Amino acid sequence: MTKAEVIISRVEALRDWMRENELWAYIFPSTDPHAGEYVPDHWKAREWISGFNGSAGTAVVTLNGAALWTDSRYWLAAEQQTAGTPFEVVRCARNQVTADELAEWLLHSAKDASPKAQKTVGIDGWCVPQSYAQSLQLAMNQAGMTLCTDYEPTAVLWTNRPALPASPIEIQPLALAGETAGSKLQRIRCSLLAQGANATIITQLDDIAWTLNLRGNDVHCTPVFVAYLMVLPDEARLYVDPVKLTPEVKDYLREMAVRIASYNTLTQDLEQCGELRGLRFLIDPDTTNNAIYDRLSMIEPLESCSVFPDDFLANAMSRTLAGMEPVTSPVIEAQCPVAQMKTLKNEAEIQGLRQAMLKDGVAMVKFLRWLEEWKTRNEESVTEVGVDRKLTALRAEQEGFRDISFDTIAGYGPHAAIVHYEATPETDIPLEPRGLLLLDSGAQYQDGTTDITRTIALGPLTEQERRDYTLVLKGHIRLSMAVFPEGSSGTQLDVLARYAMWQEHKNYGHGTGHGVGCYLSVHEGPHQFRMNWMPAPLRAGMTITIEPGIYIAGSHGCRTENTMLIVSDGEGWLRLEPLTLCPIDTTPIVREMMLPDEMAYLNSYHARVREALLPLLTDEADRQWLVQATEKFWER
Amino acid sequence: MTKAEVIISRVEALRDWMRENELWAYIFPSTDPHAGEYVPDHWKAREWISGFNGSAGTAVVTLNGAALWTDSRYWLAAEQQTAGTPFEVVRCARNQVTADELAEWLLHSAKDASPKAQKTVGIDGWCVPQSYAQSLQLAMNQAGMTLCTDYEPTAVLWTNRPALPASPIEIQPLALAGETAGSKLQRIRCSLLAQGANATIITQLDDIAWTLNLRGNDVHCTPVFVAYLMVLPDEARLYVDPVKLTPEVKDYLREMAVRIASYNTLTQDLEQCGELRGLRFLIDPDTTNNAIYDRLSMIEPLESCSVFPDDFLANAMSRTLAGMEPVTSPVIEAQCPVAQMKTLKNEAEIQGLRQAMLKDGVAMVKFLRWLEEWKTRNEESVTEVGVDRKLTALRAEQEGFRDISFDTIAGYGPHAAIVHYEATPETDIPLEPRGLLLLDSGAQYQDGTTDITRTIALGPLTEQERRDYTLVLKGHIRLSMAVFPEGSSGTQLDVLARYAMWQEHKNYGHGTGHGVGCYLSVHEGPHQFRMNWMPAPLRAGMTITIEPGIYIAGSHGCRTENTMLIVSDGEGWLRLEPLTLCPIDTTPIVREMMLPDEMAYLNSYHARVREALLPLLTDEADRQWLVQATEKFWER
Repeated sequence: MTKAEVIISRVEALRDWMRENELWAYIFPSTDPHAGEYVPDHWKAREWISGFNGSAGTAVVTLNGAALWTDSRYWLAAEQQTAGTPFEVVRCARNQVTADELAEWLLHSAKDASPKAQKTVGIDGWCVPQSYAQSLQLAMNQAGMTLCTDYEPTAVLWTNRPALPASPIEIQPLALAGETAGSKLQRIRCSLLAQGANATIITQLDDIAWTLNLRGNDVHCTPVFVAYLMVLPDEARLYVDPVKLTPEVKDYLREMAVRIASYNTLTQDLEQCGELRGLRFLIDPDTTNNAIYDRLSMIEPLESCSVFPDDFLANAMSRTLAGMEPVTSPVIEAQCPVAQMKTLKNEAEIQGLRQAMLKDGVAMVKFLRWLEEWKTRNEESVTEVGVDRKLTALRAEQEGFRDISFDTIAGYGPHAAIVHYEATPETDIPLEPRGLLLLDSGAQYQDGTTDITRTIALGPLTEQERRDYTLVLKGHIRLSMAVFPEGSSGTQLDVLARYAMWQEHKNYGHGTGHGVGCYLSVHEGPHQFRMNWMPAPLRAGMTITIEPGIYIAGSHGCRTENTMLIVSDGEGWLRLEPLTLCPIDTTPIVREMMLPDEMAYLNSYHARVREALLPLLTDEADRQWLVQATEKFWER
Repeated sequence: MTKAEVIISRVEALRDWMRENELWAYIFPSTDPHAGEYVPDHWKAREWISGFNGSAGTAVVTLNGAALWTDSRYWLAAEQQTAGTPFEVVRCARNQVTADELAEWLLHSAKDASPKAQKTVGIDGWCVPQSYAQSLQLAMNQAGMTLCTDYEPTAVLWTNRPALPASPIEIQPLALAGETAGSKLQRIRCSLLAQGANATIITQLDDIAWTLNLRGNDVHCTPVFVAYLMVLPDEARLYVDPVKLTPEVKDYLREMAVRIASYNTLTQDLEQCGELRGLRFLIDPDTTNNAIYDRLSMIEPLESCSVFPDDFLANAMSRTLAGMEPVTSPVIEAQCPVAQMKTLKNEAEIQGLRQAMLKDGVAMVKFLRWLEEWKTRNEESVTEVGVDRKLTALRAEQEGFRDISFDTIAGYGPHAAIVHYEATPETDIPLEPRGLLLLDSGAQYQDGTTDITRTIALGPLTEQERRDYTLVLKGHIRLSMAVFPEGSSGTQLDVLARYAMWQEHKNYGHGTGHGVGCYLSVHEGPHQFRMNWMPAPLRAGMTITIEPGIYIAGSHGCRTENTMLIVSDGEGWLRLEPLTLCPIDTTPIVREMMLPDEMAYLNSYHARVREALLPLLTDEADRQWLVQATEKFWER
């Protein structure tokens, strides 16, 4: 069978199943039960049903049609991968189709269907966050349909489904974590109480790994393991496949009074409501899946407050006054406290990040010197994939290297203009001694996670390439130099990275920066630098990247990114300290476009890089390259 | 009777009335039925009951206590003005006490009261916006109380209450308005239909004046008249005191099919629900008072959609899908369409604003030259009040001058650090030939409204004054130079005015800029430059001020403000063009702190000012002063 025939037969089998279950439509989102960035193969049901393998997209199958929504990154790929199948590709502006767009499409496509059949739309409640499920529910109801989240056709139809990942779990040493898991659990419980709750279920895998000081290898580029963590007043329960637990980890968990339960037993624990009666769960509807949320909502309400400390009633009263939900509900909706906690790095984590950045800087310098030698000698052919391979090999030589932290973006020439470009054997092109190479990469070291972008001149540049490079650098520096009051949000500062390029009517369609985990996910929220409103305040101890870019389709792209640490600049004030240690190519800079304070910043950054990395380089050629690359740029 | 005794007797009379009506508490907000910035004396009930005359504050009287909330501007004045009365002053962070704070205070103060009495809290629904009334209602309910908005004790207790203002209404000529009122009404109706409504009640006085191209003189510094405007599918009704209408205005309204009704008949029209049956009112809950909102909510729901055009059902369906309120409600909550429309100035208005700015620039130059002469001769004594008087006199000489647009802020030395300072005979001080004078002022000309702040060195300055002045100027220029994509909001750009001063840990507690009306209110929204999230996008044709400042309590203050026009900078891009034409004092500038592009901007602004104003100045001394003040600043 061709790939398209396989998809056709799966769709037909699904429709038979839908008829049996009296469903009119079934929705396959791209999310999994843990709402993470990378989805393990086990949960790639959208790819299974449609054949489309992009990271974002929603497939819908009705009895008489099928559609796939995806954003501009994937329009072309989606068309190719679904050719010959029943799926029509719907071009979507965002990376997730809105509930209203879905409902409208369903309403339109149900015109010819019989009245009874069109009433019910299915989705797997385990694989959709509660907030999205709720908006779907609302949109379906308003369109005269019902959303049912209890059906899992994959359980019966998906043969040869990939198993859940089962890599062994490791303990992150206290010297690197900086705080015991016991202390973190205590802080989580305090935060719950302060918000009028006494329990929670942590579902995001990096939140669980951070809380328990454990790391795994279940997810692409991210040292986490598949699990749920239920935090109760006097105990915590880790729902995890026991095969992942070494005796050491089992002992470690036992000492902390963390009970181990099998991953699949969460459902029955939630449904045995009696045991959880009287508890109030704080649940983040944006990250907790609908299946968990629904089950928690059915816990019988409180009769007494005996499980709460004495001051709980006072809190409850003030919460009530503030117009929040009444104290009788078993669920309080709020952001998971770990999301905020883990963004604030402690001293050990900051120390670890600094170590990771030194190692990453050494690998980058070795790579850049190697690339420079290629530029001058130009003997062997080097391709984008080769760049990725060389850089990863140099990183892998560093102590504590575990993995890359995301798929390397090595884009040469026009490829650099594709924001999410990933070189594959099909797209790979050789570098030439001209133009710009955009290289966005990072690593997972046991002591920290890195994320860096450099754009490198491989030889002569056009005037436009030089100007765009300079505009991006000016933006990078202007934001890097910012001092700002505590409580500022990333939205309030974002424009600093865009101001210079806006003067020339250039802009970029992505955010300017995101938090970076400490040997965890390379994308960490909720704080960000971005134009859309993102109220999360920036606080000392957070990491955040600064990565403006300019992308000229079919021509070139440039981006310059450092990972920064937010540090105190005196009572009430914050500033940004670069963690990333790697020279920024000064050869493309148009000097007349640089303001004096921008040049001074660049020179002082280079002095810092040289001072930090020179003692770590043993190869004289590397040392010479670094010294030259970090010279005051107008003296070169 | 002393002032305090008068207040005591009023509070006692109110309490007797409250007992009769079984109220436990009564709230006096500082707002009036039209939610404007300046409240006519007729509605100053909070001042009547408490004796406190500040522009913002909320008084509450209970059977056993009384309190007055006000913000930091008025803490001192409120203490003084309520000394010896039953009112305790509660220091408030914002300019309006939140519903929760109020409820908490009432709950606390009701502890000793009998259970029955404490149940009902009164407020005049006519004098409180619906959104605030609703939050009060919620907070009261959660505190076990009831809010009743139907009581108006002032109607029986306030003897010698000031009458409603009754100034004559003028027609704003079409040459200045640029669009007929008929066309505006048509656009309002289209906007209503697009949002699923077919009627509205416009309550904000500047919105009414803009819509009908009428101006009045009922409100301090603002050329508006007290009225309501009901817009229905086929007619409009102006509820206004007929004594204000000249025969000419009556004819004008008749020709446009605007029915005239007496101001007080709105209530009965709203209560005769039959007539309004089937209409759907778009109502802005932030500006429409609770009394109107409540009455509209009781209109019987639609039975048919016959009053709507054919495409209305399609709209309603898409609105329903988008999760908005069902089409059966007689009220849709949304921003009044006029708020947005009037911010977009048409060509005639822009031309008018330019004329107004030329006149204002001439007056400012004459004033600044006069001040410079005083500085050099230093013969007569000049005080802050004298500055105000002189500047107002020079403006009044200009053609079309009607009024100042707000109370002049002329603050010398430490007074300049008081953001909302208004010199009074009690606070007035003489200028001396040193330090900084902050002068924030504006005028209403028939062709436009102005708003300008200049900070002027009266002689030698301290290093700190010079640095602060320079930081403010850098911020003013950085934002003035911005180019930005269409759709940007003021929050996204605000930081540009603060960046330089943040580097030195300076900041200001007010917004950076606001819209300015065209011979209307000097403060026009909803777009603003400010740190708080304000999503209203900036669009070509809007006016907006840029007015960063630094205020050092007890020492000095500086602010530099121009009113700008947002103009297109090519497809998809916007920039800011200064409307204000007046030299910026260059003598305090610390040259080393200025970046090259900032100096270039300042010089080009001064070239523009010179070119515009020089032809209008006839006095040789004025001309010489202007030429000198607009020289390239490093050549002085």
